[in-house]
Amino acid sequence: MINYPNKKNTAQINNSLHNFANRGMNFEHAVNTSNSYYDEIKRAIITKRPTPIHIVKVDYSDHGRIKDAYFEKQSTADYNGVYRSRYIDFECKETKSKTSLSFHNISSHQICHLEKVIFHGGIAFFLIHFVSLGEIYLLDAKIICELYNRKERKSITYETIKTKGTLVEQSYMPRLKYLDAVDKVYFDEAQKVNI
Amino acid sequence: MINYPNKKNTAQINNSLHNFANRGMNFEHAVNTSNSYYDEIKRAIITKRPTPIHIVKVDYSDHGRIKDAYFEKQSTADYNGVYRSRYIDFECKETKSKTSLSFHNISSHQICHLEKVIFHGGIAFFLIHFVSLGEIYLLDAKIICELYNRKERKSITYETIKTKGTLVEQSYMPRLKYLDAVDKVYFDEAQKVNI
Repeated sequence: MINYPNKKNTAQINNSLHNFANRGMNFEHAVNTSNSYYDEIKRAIITKRPTPIHIVKVDYSDHGRIKDAYFEKQSTADYNGVYRSRYIDFECKETKSKTSLSFHNISSHQICHLEKVIFHGGIAFFLIHFVSLGEIYLLDAKIICELYNRKERKSITYETIKTKGTLVEQSYMPRLKYLDAVDKVYFDEAQKVNI
Repeated sequence: MINYPNKKNTAQINNSLHNFANRGMNFEHAVNTSNSYYDEIKRAIITKRPTPIHIVKVDYSDHGRIKDAYFEKQSTADYNGVYRSRYIDFECKETKSKTSLSFHNISSHQICHLEKVIFHGGIAFFLIHFVSLGEIYLLDAKIICELYNRKERKSITYETIKTKGTLVEQSYMPRLKYLDAVDKVYFDEAQKVNI
């Protein structure tokens, strides 16, 4: 086995999490610091996909500096990587509602992408943050994709998410213990969902 | 099993490949069109990671248009995705030399990233294009990482790549049959490399 490279200073990570805790909950930041921690402890390597940008104008006289560009819609999901030899792909969604997550912020491209991931044997899910409740759930993408495609409702209820999803434990380090939820849903034979 | 979404018009793909053939070999484009084809025939879902960009200035009065930004170095590899339920991560490198591939264009971050992928049970490799020879090889990342880390040489020879790598067959569609090479190296028990 090869050595695990690029060991970071644990104090650095502690410090960044401590600062983060003081600033209150920022979902994306929480996922990113959790991923850094999981990387550090050699549990998984999961990275955020950069937001794609359409470049209109570049100034080559200024070291190829970008002078005009705009954000493109992400056609995949926010994060992907490898955990316990499995491909993982997931999208983070946040809502202020206490009763449901609207499908408004989920694009058909993302649904499509996650369906393909499932088709090819990968693990695909949503991490859903109910801001007002301070709760985060992992919900298998298949459940959301099916409801989304059925087009009967424009949202998924909190009750459905709570019943069919798995609560993500929050802690000091990692901030979100979402890989424990992944373990329960995709690796624990007793609790495994039918995927 | 869920339906495979977003079926594209095959004529569109044919057309784009035909145009591409007329324009001569562009390595990245060849990989991208091959990935589109593999997606279309439901063989794999592999995407290019957008180049990360550091944004300096955004004009919020103009729909959040980016007015100053620069390219950041990719700290991961070019492509990743899922194939035959396995996580795949790879980097494309091109050289005009007929005798070697310089390590100059490979960053230590990329080596580090690919080592982590291997550690966690993913498949990691390089696709190496020898422009003058018109040949493309798939080489398991472990081989390059070990040579890179040994720091004895600043390049890897064509002979080593040819001997230890697998020639990627080129065709009309897909342009690069690199998943056939993946099959040989990582899925064919008889030819499997020791990873």
